[in-house]
Amino acid sequence: MELKQLGEFGLIDLIKENTIVDPASVIVGIGDDAAALLPSPRQLQLLATDMLIESVHFDLTTTTPWQLGYKAIAVNLSDIAAMGGVPKHCVVSLALPRNVQVDFVRDLYQGMKEICRRFTVNIVGGDTVSSPQGLVLNVAVTGEVEPARLQRRSGAKPGDLVVVTGELGNSAAGLDLLRRGHWQEFVFARQLVTCHLTPQPQVQAGLLLAAFANSMNDISDGLASEANEIAAASQVAVRLFEQQIPLSAELTAASAVLGNAALDYALYGGEDYQLLFTIEPEKLRVLPANEITAQLTVIGEIVRGPAGVELVAADGAARGLAPKGYNHFG
Amino acid sequence: MELKQLGEFGLIDLIKENTIVDPASVIVGIGDDAAALLPSPRQLQLLATDMLIESVHFDLTTTTPWQLGYKAIAVNLSDIAAMGGVPKHCVVSLALPRNVQVDFVRDLYQGMKEICRRFTVNIVGGDTVSSPQGLVLNVAVTGEVEPARLQRRSGAKPGDLVVVTGELGNSAAGLDLLRRGHWQEFVFARQLVTCHLTPQPQVQAGLLLAAFANSMNDISDGLASEANEIAAASQVAVRLFEQQIPLSAELTAASAVLGNAALDYALYGGEDYQLLFTIEPEKLRVLPANEITAQLTVIGEIVRGPAGVELVAADGAARGLAPKGYNHFG
Repeated sequence: MELKQLGEFGLIDLIKENTIVDPASVIVGIGDDAAALLPSPRQLQLLATDMLIESVHFDLTTTTPWQLGYKAIAVNLSDIAAMGGVPKHCVVSLALPRNVQVDFVRDLYQGMKEICRRFTVNIVGGDTVSSPQGLVLNVAVTGEVEPARLQRRSGAKPGDLVVVTGELGNSAAGLDLLRRGHWQEFVFARQLVTCHLTPQPQVQAGLLLAAFANSMNDISDGLASEANEIAAASQVAVRLFEQQIPLSAELTAASAVLGNAALDYALYGGEDYQLLFTIEPEKLRVLPANEITAQLTVIGEIVRGPAGVELVAADGAARGLAPKGYNHFG
Repeated sequence: MELKQLGEFGLIDLIKENTIVDPASVIVGIGDDAAALLPSPRQLQLLATDMLIESVHFDLTTTTPWQLGYKAIAVNLSDIAAMGGVPKHCVVSLALPRNVQVDFVRDLYQGMKEICRRFTVNIVGGDTVSSPQGLVLNVAVTGEVEPARLQRRSGAKPGDLVVVTGELGNSAAGLDLLRRGHWQEFVFARQLVTCHLTPQPQVQAGLLLAAFANSMNDISDGLASEANEIAAASQVAVRLFEQQIPLSAELTAASAVLGNAALDYALYGGEDYQLLFTIEPEKLRVLPANEITAQLTVIGEIVRGPAGVELVAADGAARGLAPKGYNHFG
């Protein structure tokens, strides 16, 4: 069935179901002019937004609507995680082509609702409009953070270690495999493709690290770009050690097939949605041992010097690392 | 100069200027992963979003970028006004065609900044991406409201009067004049066109009425649609009196030229962004006399009966009023 047969009210009913997973904080959800929400006491409010455009950010021949919905929320939760916050509520704007099928919209929302359920985020409103060409999704998300735990890009200090969660470059290699096609023939490909299509925002890691880190960023545009943002915002020199950058075995295998350097995926690939942070060495040592801290890798240090990033190779040779990256604009 | 020559960081610098008009509530504005904001104590948080799509919601041959920016914020502030709240912060997502000029983006933001300055709303973040075809704007706005003043669609009670701010139908007639062209030849046209291109959200009225009204809605989709929403949400019968609906002299003049009934613009036109509310008669009498209350018109009453809307003509004949309207979807 096409959506126009369902009508606007039918669509709202379809969307509304299972959107509130934390009812205690919602006074008014979907269906009024605005949502009305109960903030937690003594918290700062966080607010972020991200827009995804068909044929720029996603390709409906390589992603399912469920995956697309999941990812649209994930990239927003990642922004809240990078501030050390807990995501709370989101509103979703959709521009849909006129001939879109009801099943497509249902699946898109199922993906959104699944990740929202996992992270206890309410969908409290939105806007659904007609698109003359191509699908557009915009999500805006709110979060909360204790004032003392707020993480900015600007807090890095000389002497800090530079640390990342997880592995880098997987998502961009996954994208290249999707574009190449026939990726199912490679045993290593599924994990990379999954990293690209349904990234996992590092909300739990962000909450843990918020009490210890000096600065934090999520890796949406590649390590080179994000490290430069911390360097510029904090006015410090970031020194990264090439050999310490965590690359997965799957990435290494895929890079050989794709004819690119694995390291370049990590530096310039983007969309990993891991966290990059700086922390005093003594604080890194006192982090509790758990699943999150087991996935941390020290990849560099903050030193005195002009703001910028240098990458030190295995032989000790250093080169400047420019913020070239994945950029859906320009 | 084309935007791609300016680059991403040049663009952020251009956008960032004069975005914070209420600095006391902003801990982190544009330039980090998310904004961090200081909520006012003991308020509910409001959250709304609206998306505008080129060739669906606007036509760049009849609107300037300044007007478009102004309107994109205005329609969101109207949602906050309809809840009885004060707008606080917004985030702006833009999908821009690759060949867009820097001046265009500057003017778009100047329009947004002008209305934000007037209503003391901060622009605290956003996302700027590339669009393969056509401009897309999405704004998400937060607001605050005292819990006791929160206005919903569902609070209308039998015995309430039905009241509107301002005049209805002007915006839709302005749109028809723009589409027709050569509107400058009509002395009545400018005001209608202005209502369409740069609507004024009724924030001050909403704040005043929040202490007195039982239910409220902004008129984005035409009176017929909005009255039906209140009827359905409150499970009441809304009776409107045709002759009491406030129509401007300009609308009446334009309707003759355009060959449509002035009343139909008010009922089905949409985009007036006036407020429709219900209020007990004794509370309406005690409203303070001022600029806002001078613009109020009683247009009907809430009566017992099945949920729905009826329109009573001058001769006393009543007909059901369906929520047919302006709808950018379906």
